[in-house]
Amino acid sequence: MSPSKPADGQPRGYIIPIGGAEKVQEPAILKRFVRLCGGRHARIAIVPTASLMSDTGSVYEELFDELGAGSAQAFALEERADGSDAETLRKLERATGVFFTGGNQLRLSTHLGGTPVAKTIRILNARGVHVAGTSAGAAFLSEHMIAFGDEGASPRVGSVTLSAGLGLTNRVIIDQHFRQRDRLGRLLTALAYNPFAVGLGLDEDTAAFIAPDETVEVVGSGAVTIVDPSDVEFSSMDQSAKGEPVCLLGIRMHILVQGATFNLHTRVADPGSVAVAKG
Amino acid sequence: MSPSKPADGQPRGYIIPIGGAEKVQEPAILKRFVRLCGGRHARIAIVPTASLMSDTGSVYEELFDELGAGSAQAFALEERADGSDAETLRKLERATGVFFTGGNQLRLSTHLGGTPVAKTIRILNARGVHVAGTSAGAAFLSEHMIAFGDEGASPRVGSVTLSAGLGLTNRVIIDQHFRQRDRLGRLLTALAYNPFAVGLGLDEDTAAFIAPDETVEVVGSGAVTIVDPSDVEFSSMDQSAKGEPVCLLGIRMHILVQGATFNLHTRVADPGSVAVAKG
Repeated sequence: MSPSKPADGQPRGYIIPIGGAEKVQEPAILKRFVRLCGGRHARIAIVPTASLMSDTGSVYEELFDELGAGSAQAFALEERADGSDAETLRKLERATGVFFTGGNQLRLSTHLGGTPVAKTIRILNARGVHVAGTSAGAAFLSEHMIAFGDEGASPRVGSVTLSAGLGLTNRVIIDQHFRQRDRLGRLLTALAYNPFAVGLGLDEDTAAFIAPDETVEVVGSGAVTIVDPSDVEFSSMDQSAKGEPVCLLGIRMHILVQGATFNLHTRVADPGSVAVAKG
Repeated sequence: MSPSKPADGQPRGYIIPIGGAEKVQEPAILKRFVRLCGGRHARIAIVPTASLMSDTGSVYEELFDELGAGSAQAFALEERADGSDAETLRKLERATGVFFTGGNQLRLSTHLGGTPVAKTIRILNARGVHVAGTSAGAAFLSEHMIAFGDEGASPRVGSVTLSAGLGLTNRVIIDQHFRQRDRLGRLLTALAYNPFAVGLGLDEDTAAFIAPDETVEVVGSGAVTIVDPSDVEFSSMDQSAKGEPVCLLGIRMHILVQGATFNLHTRVADPGSVAVAKG
């Protein structure tokens, strides 16, 4: 389930994990998403599957409507069978953006994983359609998804359970409500299993806009914590017992705020417009 | 108030911040402290000033007694005037170890700061006497002390208030109950003001034994998070408004568990016996 290959010469769409609780009064993140998807020409498909509340889909339909999206439609997708529905697939094909709501990310992976709907969204993103998700919806976007885990600042063996996600990218592992729920430890634990991916810890009301060129741009009122394990010199993950803290040496970390960027390919952080504002 | 200079050829004593809640059932940290101070020949001076509970001093007297210390005596030091008491100073001079209990670190800095007792303890440490502190007592040991602050994983302007501490070392800023109370953000904020010192985030029941050669050794059941800002490339601390998140690029971080070390001088982390156990 590696990411779908972009069509020749065609950049993939943005991948946009949001840390949850994106502000409705001053919705900078959702506004930018709508603009990216075409503004008045945007056709946004909403997937409320993570949520157990029956009105989540319609709440976002109204919200995107108020933000000037051409159209916004929620697809119930409550059973696995819905993931093969021909009418849904036909409508999805026309979307310029896909939005996953919050809730429980395991509902997303168990209900949609491996269905034609999931496959279609992967192909759409490869073709240039933008895909955003908030909270549980954010966690689901990447190849390796944090299914659930403990909270607390130090990494401990067994403190996190990974699962296969939607797989739009395998370069990041995403955690959300980051500052608000103290999740550095579980993100470090997830990375310690295999220090291949970069950890993105998203504060609430904060999004990482991952551009087609692999540049992460921050939008929102909080911070994105980048945890880059590429220089990790030592990890005791393979020898520690369950519940024991993990020894992990040589982590690189950046705290990005709105305007700053990080390139997932070169692994270089840049203050961007934060430094310009300083001048 | 820079650290007292060691006497010629005389190594200073250990500086031992403990993250709080050091286990009484299996008190590895306190045992090692007693052994370091001379075991059956140890004379431990207990400073319970941080605590508002009247029996804190006697509880530690009994505990050190059970652990085989030659003698252990608590000094009330409840008023600033007590910090000049001739009898106390005379007894302190004979100590082989000093132990600060938990409570509120501002009680330590306001009651003892600048008194002859504080000065004596600094001189004793320079002469080779070991000084430990748990929780508030740990925070107090260094030159720059976290007086109080907010909790949460991202650094924010104004989220921490620093104060002058006892000043045994200016190489570290200490935060305690680290994993348990989610204090990475405030430690990062404290370091962002001046990325000179190294941050030590101490989990509960975990101590950093800072040896005379500036090697930090970890003892206890949790982790010590080392936050090394020496490669920080950019900080927005000087331009951000109160409450705003701080952009901070290029932090280095190590999670050390028992057996691992970090040298405050060379800033090199080493898995130590954690790697040996692996072999």
